[in-house]
Amino acid sequence: MAIGKSINRVDALDKVTGKAKYTDDLVPENSLVAKVYHAEIANGVVKSIDVSKARALDGVEAVFTCFDVPKFKFATAGHPWTADKTHQDVADRLILNERIRYYGDDIACVVAVDKLTAERALRLIDVEYEEYEPLLTVEAAKKSDIPIHEEYPNNILAHSTYKVGSTFAEATKDKDYDIFEDEFHLPIVQHAFMENATSFAYEEAGKIVIVSSTQIPHIVRRVVGQALNIPWGKIRVIKPYIGGGFGGKQDVLYEPLNAWLTIKMNGQCVHLELSREESFINTRVRHAMDIKVKSAFDGNRLIARKVKLTSNQGGYASHGHSVVAGAAHVVKQLYQDKIATEVEFETVYTNLPVAGAMRGYGVPQICFALESHMENVAHKKGIDNLEIRKANMIKEGFVDPINTIPSLSNELEACIDAGSKYLNFKEKQEKYKKQNSHIRKGVGFAIFSYKTGVYPISLETASARMLLNQDGSIQLQMGATEIGQGADTVFTQMAAEATGITHDNVYIISAQDTDVTPYDSGAYASRQTYVSGHAVKQCGIKLKENIIEYAKFLGYKAADIKENQAIDKSGKKLISVADLAIEAFYNRKKTNHISAETTYHCESNTISHGTTFVEIEVDMKLGLVKVLDIINVHDSGTIINPKTAAGQVHGGISMGIAYALSEELLFNPKNGKPYNSDLLGYKIPTSLDTPDISHKFIEKYDPSGPYGNKALGEPPTISVAPAIRNALLNATGIMFDSIPLTPERIYNACKENKLV
Amino acid sequence: MAIGKSINRVDALDKVTGKAKYTDDLVPENSLVAKVYHAEIANGVVKSIDVSKARALDGVEAVFTCFDVPKFKFATAGHPWTADKTHQDVADRLILNERIRYYGDDIACVVAVDKLTAERALRLIDVEYEEYEPLLTVEAAKKSDIPIHEEYPNNILAHSTYKVGSTFAEATKDKDYDIFEDEFHLPIVQHAFMENATSFAYEEAGKIVIVSSTQIPHIVRRVVGQALNIPWGKIRVIKPYIGGGFGGKQDVLYEPLNAWLTIKMNGQCVHLELSREESFINTRVRHAMDIKVKSAFDGNRLIARKVKLTSNQGGYASHGHSVVAGAAHVVKQLYQDKIATEVEFETVYTNLPVAGAMRGYGVPQICFALESHMENVAHKKGIDNLEIRKANMIKEGFVDPINTIPSLSNELEACIDAGSKYLNFKEKQEKYKKQNSHIRKGVGFAIFSYKTGVYPISLETASARMLLNQDGSIQLQMGATEIGQGADTVFTQMAAEATGITHDNVYIISAQDTDVTPYDSGAYASRQTYVSGHAVKQCGIKLKENIIEYAKFLGYKAADIKENQAIDKSGKKLISVADLAIEAFYNRKKTNHISAETTYHCESNTISHGTTFVEIEVDMKLGLVKVLDIINVHDSGTIINPKTAAGQVHGGISMGIAYALSEELLFNPKNGKPYNSDLLGYKIPTSLDTPDISHKFIEKYDPSGPYGNKALGEPPTISVAPAIRNALLNATGIMFDSIPLTPERIYNACKENKLV
Repeated sequence: MAIGKSINRVDALDKVTGKAKYTDDLVPENSLVAKVYHAEIANGVVKSIDVSKARALDGVEAVFTCFDVPKFKFATAGHPWTADKTHQDVADRLILNERIRYYGDDIACVVAVDKLTAERALRLIDVEYEEYEPLLTVEAAKKSDIPIHEEYPNNILAHSTYKVGSTFAEATKDKDYDIFEDEFHLPIVQHAFMENATSFAYEEAGKIVIVSSTQIPHIVRRVVGQALNIPWGKIRVIKPYIGGGFGGKQDVLYEPLNAWLTIKMNGQCVHLELSREESFINTRVRHAMDIKVKSAFDGNRLIARKVKLTSNQGGYASHGHSVVAGAAHVVKQLYQDKIATEVEFETVYTNLPVAGAMRGYGVPQICFALESHMENVAHKKGIDNLEIRKANMIKEGFVDPINTIPSLSNELEACIDAGSKYLNFKEKQEKYKKQNSHIRKGVGFAIFSYKTGVYPISLETASARMLLNQDGSIQLQMGATEIGQGADTVFTQMAAEATGITHDNVYIISAQDTDVTPYDSGAYASRQTYVSGHAVKQCGIKLKENIIEYAKFLGYKAADIKENQAIDKSGKKLISVADLAIEAFYNRKKTNHISAETTYHCESNTISHGTTFVEIEVDMKLGLVKVLDIINVHDSGTIINPKTAAGQVHGGISMGIAYALSEELLFNPKNGKPYNSDLLGYKIPTSLDTPDISHKFIEKYDPSGPYGNKALGEPPTISVAPAIRNALLNATGIMFDSIPLTPERIYNACKENKLV
Repeated sequence: MAIGKSINRVDALDKVTGKAKYTDDLVPENSLVAKVYHAEIANGVVKSIDVSKARALDGVEAVFTCFDVPKFKFATAGHPWTADKTHQDVADRLILNERIRYYGDDIACVVAVDKLTAERALRLIDVEYEEYEPLLTVEAAKKSDIPIHEEYPNNILAHSTYKVGSTFAEATKDKDYDIFEDEFHLPIVQHAFMENATSFAYEEAGKIVIVSSTQIPHIVRRVVGQALNIPWGKIRVIKPYIGGGFGGKQDVLYEPLNAWLTIKMNGQCVHLELSREESFINTRVRHAMDIKVKSAFDGNRLIARKVKLTSNQGGYASHGHSVVAGAAHVVKQLYQDKIATEVEFETVYTNLPVAGAMRGYGVPQICFALESHMENVAHKKGIDNLEIRKANMIKEGFVDPINTIPSLSNELEACIDAGSKYLNFKEKQEKYKKQNSHIRKGVGFAIFSYKTGVYPISLETASARMLLNQDGSIQLQMGATEIGQGADTVFTQMAAEATGITHDNVYIISAQDTDVTPYDSGAYASRQTYVSGHAVKQCGIKLKENIIEYAKFLGYKAADIKENQAIDKSGKKLISVADLAIEAFYNRKKTNHISAETTYHCESNTISHGTTFVEIEVDMKLGLVKVLDIINVHDSGTIINPKTAAGQVHGGISMGIAYALSEELLFNPKNGKPYNSDLLGYKIPTSLDTPDISHKFIEKYDPSGPYGNKALGEPPTISVAPAIRNALLNATGIMFDSIPLTPERIYNACKENKLV
């Protein structure tokens, strides 16, 4: 059995020894270097660009401006796509843009023999702008009569509503329910992946080849084709190891520009690597959201709920309305027992960096709002905060009343109990209510739910290929991508499980190359272990059948493969797969280079659950929060590899702590210029900032998962911030409505509440 | 119809613009460089090596000697292999050798930070030898009591005989037949591929990765595994474009050493590029052979034949006895009408560079002997040299009495007629018999036959994979290798023919990567267009079936695909493959990333035929031969691409002219040190040395070929040398018995015959 084993990551050795090759390790010598010229205003139009001095600089090969580029508008979201135009993403961008939509927008580009020359050339470019008032808030954008995109006159990219049952007013009209109302504000944060966005491109064999640090190579192929209006088969995308993505590389970033540049340079290799500052501003950020939550309670029973979400999109649509929709739909997937629910959500263009996918895809925002609100209700009503969750949260058998996504397995209550027990939560909570010092402790928790993949909202499909080697080992080739999350390792285990070949005899091809790699839309939506996992399982079963068939040709009554041996029905060993493989390759009567390649069309989904329990200490005079103990308890079905799963949880918690306490991308309110777009100003937690982290899995076999498993990639980060915020409420009695809970914010609130 | 079209080579643009990537274009920066220390004696033993000074040199990372290497003897021939040990190649080599078997044998190796340092370090190595007498001729080797390999005490690697019908003595005992006897001597020549042998290797993802300029990546994988005794699945071989092979890279060369070095250097990348001098001496050469031919005639009817071939193997077995066997078996495949045939052939180890596969695989040698002998017979008997061939050569329906290879299609007579007509042969031949000047003209010709692939002597198997892209184009992935011969182009045409997708929508993956590329044993034996061509056809038919099946899912009554359209039985267009592909990738109800992968197990063979007709001018005072006009007429079945086929013919003729007139690798007879192991001393013809070349194809559909085609890769070079030699006989009346026909050899012969 390979499932459930804590085998080492298959890429561990190469990564710690530096052998693993990332995009920039592969750039050919003598490649040209491209650098982008970014606008110095947040809203306006390029009137003219003088590039004559830049072009004249020795070593500059070419300078291109927004006036030179193809005029095919394209969408960048890493969505599975559909041929149905009404369901396609918003195509609102060119590879360089005359209309400037945020401070740093791409308006020109230099290609030079090296980076230094390219950067020097950038400083020789003179731009004449027509400048408009920067629209940095959703309020300002909605009021302005200058549309950021002319197709959206009031800057509202989209506005939607849904309703379950009756309206809030109807549901509450007959009885005097307790009504609670809160509003929460979530900041703009950045993925801050270790490896900046980078790619290089060249022409070869009649194709444009793009090597890129991306989560979605097959989608990059499509979008480059769309952006340049060339047949998609003429584009080849290669994805080496990548140094983090977190959703930021689930967008097509500079690959279309890079592809266009190699065409303009007659196929010469052009390298386009973003600086850290560019990665902060010119890739994607997490959506800032304002979320209003209103609810009616009868005792601890939730009766009706009304939620409004406003999402700050920044200058281009990217994943656009999908993210706030993802948040909005969780309202009924966390607490819903046929209660009246009214939800309104809108996405507004502003002159800020573009918001896209980021781990959790809107759900960390809504979870913060829902779980902070729920805690406020318990606090205000003086009722048990554990019981109010248990009484109202969804249970096994739940089916989303709108998108039909079910909770086919549900151990959320067991998760809560385990977390509570781990922290000795109830006792501590009572104790911490009675503190007087300026240094206080607090415990808090929050729960979450998260779907697995995108079916039935969107398409789910994945392919896998396996090849038998001469020594009885196999190659596994996936379109699904390893982005640091450990996908290659769990696919290896699944392939072993499905084929009967031991995992040490399974070699996964980590890099994707759209020319030879089976199709898969890529790493997002916590889909791969589930959707692509099904593809591995199906392909493995097929490969095993093919091996058994060849064993029969050799005269063996093979019925199965176990531990690298073909066995008969009674379990008796007949021939090793290694010996069989030699025959399959070299038998003079009949050879068969045994392989299997299959497509799994996925038509299922299921919800993962979990909780964070945390204990903190706050120094109210300094406004400083210290996390003393933190645990995530997850119901993600069967855990394929406890060790790599733990890695996911620890990373997610670390990201969640930073979301709660420290990270926020800040802008000059006058001109939209970023204040802290680097790792000095925008501090991601180091190992010294990160407390010891605990985790626990409550495993229940999910009937829809390939091996009983369901989403675990994004979930760990979701409930951390509200749990910390709720612990701060326990410690101080203050109901914070915003993150990050910076020292300034905490100190000011404590002062206001006369605690210091 | 894609078959028979002269489309441009699919790699033409990349090759002329320099975009095509060869091995040395791909070496990672900061790779270590390895250089081999070659023995300065031809026969002996390394007593000791002092590498202390070399190791102490700054920049030297390691020095290894023959005393350090693994002791697994391995065979290097690029043969398909078999699990049957009695049919495996002779394993007589280690990656560095203590026992020195030729001047230049590999005895130590330096790894340094750069090439210059590595070369300086080589000069600091001191070797103490025990030296034996160099055995440079087969006669000397057979007489010596010092075996070059201890398992072969008299240095005879192998000795074989076969007989068809009765013995020569029996067949000739009853009548007074005309008996003719000749002996011919064929020189050692070198492939002299443009790109020297080169490879680099590193460890990644638990594997040893070897990027190498090879014709046989899947065989390199096996042999490296055997040489280092590690599982073959742990070895990954990548073959980029290669700059010529001609059989020289149908041997595993320095890949095992390179692989071992990366292991010793903890997986760091090590680059091992041979110099031109090393490529001449330390790769492989064409076997020198001495061939005795004796025949009995009744009028112009051949009655009996006795042939003896002695092959000079050099220091290691490589392809060994197979090459002379290949030659020996052609004796009955060129002239055979149940005549009595006795053939004896042996292969002898000598202290010369190792002989291996080279274009024609022994057949240029035997063809020179047979066709020179036949010409001598006609000359001596005063009978028509065209008629003596026609009367005795094999005809359609011929089946080799020993190995059962048939001539399923045979246009050899038409080839002779076409060549004769082209040159106005008969008239010129008569005219040129009566010349008196020291500058004379002559015409000559020779015929050949050549089998297609290695079945049933050895295994023939090939796989192909195809993938449908979103734009209706397809990817074609072959284990068969493009080595400059145009394989990628004809496979592309075959894939188009088989699938109904036009050739401009077929993208072939040129590079092989044993991790993902379907298995194929590689480029040799003129097998690929035939054997691997069958794999393409079979795979294309399967892909088409899969596309049609999906069309049916979409509701179309599709029966076939033509010109990128699914059509019904009546030929009516239903849906383009491009539109169908979009559905196959993005349809919400059923996706299928359509692919096909199949193995073709080949159990057929057929013989190609052809002839060279040539007109020369010889200046007997200078001994100089000028080729005035030359044509090859080929019966290779259907010609898939006349333009690339012409390229094969022209290249083969050019190689044949050089074999006839100028090329020979020479050695100091005292110590075996090469005299001319560089492009100054060993002159391959330049374009200025090459006359205008003509060609013609007599096309007849061969029933066993995938599209009626049969061998064309090696054939063009076979009959050139005897045709030129026979033209010289026409001009001078001298029956030369050796090549190359250098000025010295011609002048001396003319002087001896009192012509000058």
